Amino acid sequence: MDNIKLAARENRPKTVIEVGSLRIGEEFVIIAGPCSIESDELTMKIAMAVKQAGAHMLRGGAFKPRTSPYSFQGLGMRGLKILEKARGLTGLPIVSEVLDPRDVAWMCEYVDILQVGARNMQNFSLLKEVGKVDKPVLLKRSMQSTLSELLNCAEYILNEGNQKVILCERGIRTFETYTRNTLDISAVAALKEMTHLPVIVDPSHGTGKASLVPAMCLAAAAAGADGLLVEVHVRPEQALSDKEQALTTEEFADLAGRVLSLRRFMEGWA
Amino acid sequence: MDNIKLAARENRPKTVIEVGSLRIGEEFVIIAGPCSIESDELTMKIAMAVKQAGAHMLRGGAFKPRTSPYSFQGLGMRGLKILEKARGLTGLPIVSEVLDPRDVAWMCEYVDILQVGARNMQNFSLLKEVGKVDKPVLLKRSMQSTLSELLNCAEYILNEGNQKVILCERGIRTFETYTRNTLDISAVAALKEMTHLPVIVDPSHGTGKASLVPAMCLAAAAAGADGLLVEVHVRPEQALSDKEQALTTEEFADLAGRVLSLRRFMEGWA
Amino acid sequence: MDNIKLAARENRPKTVIEVGSLRIGEEFVIIAGPCSIESDELTMKIAMAVKQAGAHMLRGGAFKPRTSPYSFQGLGMRGLKILEKARGLTGLPIVSEVLDPRDVAWMCEYVDILQVGARNMQNFSLLKEVGKVDKPVLLKRSMQSTLSELLNCAEYILNEGNQKVILCERGIRTFETYTRNTLDISAVAALKEMTHLPVIVDPSHGTGKASLVPAMCLAAAAAGADGLLVEVHVRPEQALSDKEQALTTEEFADLAGRVLSLRRFMEGWA
Amino acid sequence: MDNIKLAARENRPKTVIEVGSLRIGEEFVIIAGPCSIESDELTMKIAMAVKQAGAHMLRGGAFKPRTSPYSFQGLGMRGLKILEKARGLTGLPIVSEVLDPRDVAWMCEYVDILQVGARNMQNFSLLKEVGKVDKPVLLKRSMQSTLSELLNCAEYILNEGNQKVILCERGIRTFETYTRNTLDISAVAALKEMTHLPVIVDPSHGTGKASLVPAMCLAAAAAGADGLLVEVHVRPEQALSDKEQALTTEEFADLAGRVLSLRRFMEGWA
Repeated sequence: MDNIKLAARENRPKTVIEVGSLRIGEEFVIIAGPCSIESDELTMKIAMAVKQAGAHMLRGGAFKPRTSPYSFQGLGMRGLKILEKARGLTGLPIVSEVLDPRDVAWMCEYVDILQVGARNMQNFSLLKEVGKVDKPVLLKRSMQSTLSELLNCAEYILNEGNQKVILCERGIRTFETYTRNTLDISAVAALKEMTHLPVIVDPSHGTGKASLVPAMCLAAAAAGADGLLVEVHVRPEQALSDKEQALTTEEFADLAGRVLSLRRFMEGWA
Repeated sequence: MDNIKLAARENRPKTVIEVGSLRIGEEFVIIAGPCSIESDELTMKIAMAVKQAGAHMLRGGAFKPRTSPYSFQGLGMRGLKILEKARGLTGLPIVSEVLDPRDVAWMCEYVDILQVGARNMQNFSLLKEVGKVDKPVLLKRSMQSTLSELLNCAEYILNEGNQKVILCERGIRTFETYTRNTLDISAVAALKEMTHLPVIVDPSHGTGKASLVPAMCLAAAAAGADGLLVEVHVRPEQALSDKEQALTTEEFADLAGRVLSLRRFMEGWA
Repeated sequence: MDNIKLAARENRPKTVIEVGSLRIGEEFVIIAGPCSIESDELTMKIAMAVKQAGAHMLRGGAFKPRTSPYSFQGLGMRGLKILEKARGLTGLPIVSEVLDPRDVAWMCEYVDILQVGARNMQNFSLLKEVGKVDKPVLLKRSMQSTLSELLNCAEYILNEGNQKVILCERGIRTFETYTRNTLDISAVAALKEMTHLPVIVDPSHGTGKASLVPAMCLAAAAAGADGLLVEVHVRPEQALSDKEQALTTEEFADLAGRVLSLRRFMEGWA
Repeated sequence: MDNIKLAARENRPKTVIEVGSLRIGEEFVIIAGPCSIESDELTMKIAMAVKQAGAHMLRGGAFKPRTSPYSFQGLGMRGLKILEKARGLTGLPIVSEVLDPRDVAWMCEYVDILQVGARNMQNFSLLKEVGKVDKPVLLKRSMQSTLSELLNCAEYILNEGNQKVILCERGIRTFETYTRNTLDISAVAALKEMTHLPVIVDPSHGTGKASLVPAMCLAAAAAGADGLLVEVHVRPEQALSDKEQALTTEEFADLAGRVLSLRRFMEGWA
C-alpha cells in the first residue's frame, strides 16, 4: 500500500462525484440496464422501466469484451447512439464500457461515465487514457486482483489528472462453482477504510445468478456501498449475453424499492 | 448435488431447531463470546455483557484447533466447566467446539450446541459421531469447500439420525490479503435455495478484522442469514487467540442493537 | 514460519526414513496401487503388476474419506487383511490411510506407513495420535493449505515424538476446471528449502486425469521429489473410486521405467 | 471449449513457428534476458552471457506493465533500440512486450516476437491488433485464467489471420504466499492435449523466487514444454524490477546446460 497516494483515505475523507444532479459518494445510486445494447426498441423499454422503478442511471454495453471471438461483440457506435436516445427519453445519465485507448476521446461525447471493465483493470494504456479526460470513470475490480492492486489502478487514473474515479466490486474468482464468481462484500467496508473514492457493487456479475441478486443488493446496501450496478432486461431469457444474471423489470422494481427503503432506514441511525 | 438427499430443499421447506426457548431458523439469533475460554472471571464478564447487549447464546472454545502445536490449545474440560457456570449466571445456552470423536458423548453433558470447526468439516469420523447424538450441531464451512461439499458433510450427520444441523459460513480462502479470509455472503442466499437447514454467518473469522465485522454483520442480516456468530472480548488486545478480530463489549452492544433493528425493519416487508 | 522448529531445515540437513530395506529421502521411491482395496483377487493382480514394473511400495485405501456418505466407504479391516496378504505375496511394504484417532494403534499392526489424508491434515487429534506411535507417517498437504501450514502439521507429529514424517504434495484447489486440482510442483523445491523431511508427489489426485499423470511424474522427479504416489488399476474404468485418474498396469510399467531412468541420469550430474 | 476452433488439437497435430533458423514447437528453445532493459552496457553483457550459455533468444522489457504508476515503466523506444543492438551483437532473436494496440505496427520493426503479457491476456483490442500482423506472438496466460480462456484468447489472434501463436504458462494466483504465484506445470501437458500451439513456461514469474527457478525449469522440460522463458541479470540485486526472481548469468549457464542435456536424454526415449 506504500504506493497509494492520491487514492488514500489519509488524503481526503470523501470524494463526491457529480453526474448531472446526482452526487455519487453522498447519495445512494442505482445504475441499471441491459448487459449489452441489443436494439433501439428494447433499450427504450428497459430504460423507461428502470427509470420508473427508481434507478438513477442507465447502463448498457456497446463494446462487449467476450471470452470468445465468436460471441456477440456489441453494436459499437450504433449502441452508443441508442443509449444517447434513451438518455433523451428518460433523463438518465449513461454508463458504458470503453475497451480501447483509441476510443476514449470520442466516447466521451456519448457517455456520462466511462466504464473500465474487470478484464482491463490492469490495461495501463487504457487507464492512462481515461486519466486524461474530464469524465468520471467506473473502474471495476478484476476478478483476480487484490484491493491494493485495484487502488494502484485508480492511482494510475488519478495521477494523470482525472480525480473522478468510482470503484466497483464485481466478484472475484474462487473455487466455488455454484456462483459464477464470489462477490466480496467485505471489499466495500475494506475500501472505505483504505480510500476516499466511492465504492459500488455489481451483484449481477458478482453472482452470475439472477436468483441471488436481490439478497446481494440488500447486503451491499447494508454494508455501506455507495450504489449498485444491476443488470435488467425485459425478457432475460432472450438476452444476447449474460441472460442467467439479469433481473426482469418487475423483479428490479420490487428490489429497488426495498434497497432504497433499507438505506433510508439506516440513515436514521446516524 | 446428486447425493444431497436429507439436506435438500425439495425435502422440506425449513428446519427449525429448538435450543431452550430459542427457535433457530425462525427467529434471528446472535451467538457471541470469546474465541477461547481463558479464565472464569473474564468469561463471566463477557457473558454478562453480551447477554445485556441482546445476544441469544454464548460461544467459547475449550478445545482450540491451532495451526501450531506451540499455540494455546484451550483449557479443555476446565473451560467447559466455566462455560457451564456462565450459562447458570446468564441463562444463555452454550456453543463450543468438539475436535475428537472420543469427546462427543461426554461433551453433550456440557454444551447446548456442538460446533464442528472449519478444519474438521470433512473429518468424517467426527461427523458420524455427532450424527449419533441428540444435540444440535453447528457445522462450519471449511475455507476450501464448495457449498455442495458443505451440504454433503451435513448429509453425513443427518444420515446418522441427527436432524439438527445449523450451517455456518465463515470465510473462504482466496488470494486477497487485506482480509484473513473472504466472507462469502452470497453463500447465505445460495444455501437458502439448496437446503432447508438454518444458515448463520461468522464475520469475525470471515474477515479477521474487527473493523470490518459490523458492516459484515449488517450485510449478513440483510442477505437473509438466520443468525450471527461474533467474537467479543472485554479487552481484545489481551486475548490469547484471534485478538485482531474480536469486538469490545461496547462495540458489540452497539452492533447488536443495529442488527436486530434492521431485521425487525425487514420483517415489516413480508 | 516462526513456529517451525523440529521440522525446520536449519535443524538437520536431511531425514532418511527406513521402511524395510528402503531408505526414503535417500533413494527415489515409487508407491503404487489402487485408490481403494476392492477385492482380494484384484489387489493381488495389481500388487504383482506394480511390483514387476518397479514400484517400491503398495498403496491402497481400506478406509476411504468420501465427499458423500452414500459413496463406497472402503472395506475397512477386511481391506487391511487383503493388503497384508499382498505384502506377503510381493514383499512390498504397505501404505494405507487412517481416518480416526481410535484406529491408529491397531492399524500399526497392518501397515508399514500410516497415511494422513489431505482432508485430515489439520485434524489435530489424529496428528497427535500418529505422533505417539513408532510408524512412519505420510502426511498429505490439504488442498487449501499453505506450505507453512503443512509444516506446522508435521510439527504436531514430530512434537509428540514420532520423527518419521514424509510430506506429500497432492494438488491444491484453484479456479482451473480442466484438472481436478492444480498440482503444485514448486512445492517440492520450496519444501526442500524449508524442511529436512522427505517430499513425495501424488500426480493422480493432483491432476485427477490419467492422461496427465505421466508428464507430472516426470516433472516431479526432475524437480527433485523423493518419490511418487501413483494410482494404478487393472481396469481403471471399473474402479469403485477415482476411476478417471488411475493408470493401467501397462501405462504404469512404461512410466516407472522412464521415471527411474530419468532419476539415474540426473544422479550422474551431482 | 465449444468455441475453440482454429486453436484446437483436432485441427492440426502441431504448429511449428520459425524465427530465424529456430523452429519453435519442434526444438526446445530457451529465451533468456533481463526483466526490463535498463541500459545499453548491461543489456550487452547479459545478451553475451546468455548467448554463450546456450540461450536461443533474448527477452527484455522496453514497456513495463507495473502495478504502481510510480514504479519504473521501462525505457520505451530507447529500450527497443538497445535490444536491436544486442541482436546485432549476438545474433539472438528478440522478444519484447507490447502494451498498447497503437504500438503493434511499429514495434514489429524491432522485435522478432511480440509478447502479450499476462495482465493483457484478455485485452481484446490488443489481441485483434497483434492478430493482424505477420509476427509471432507470445501469449502469456493471465494469473487468473483457465486454460480454456487462454485458448479463447489465442483464438482471437488466429481468427484475425496470424497463425503464429506461442502460449506461455507463468503461474496462477492462489492462496500460497511462499511463492509469488503457483506455477501450473500441469498446464503444459493439458495444453498439449487441447491445442497444436507450442507451449513454453516462465518459472521466473511463476515462482517469483530465483532459488526455485532451476528445479522448475527442469520440471517444465521433463513435462514436455517446448521451451523456457527465464529472467537473467548480471547483478540481480541491482535490477530495477523483479530482482528476487532473476538468475545470475553463472546460475543460468549451469541451468541451461542441465536442461538441454535432460531434453537430449529424453529424446532418446522416443
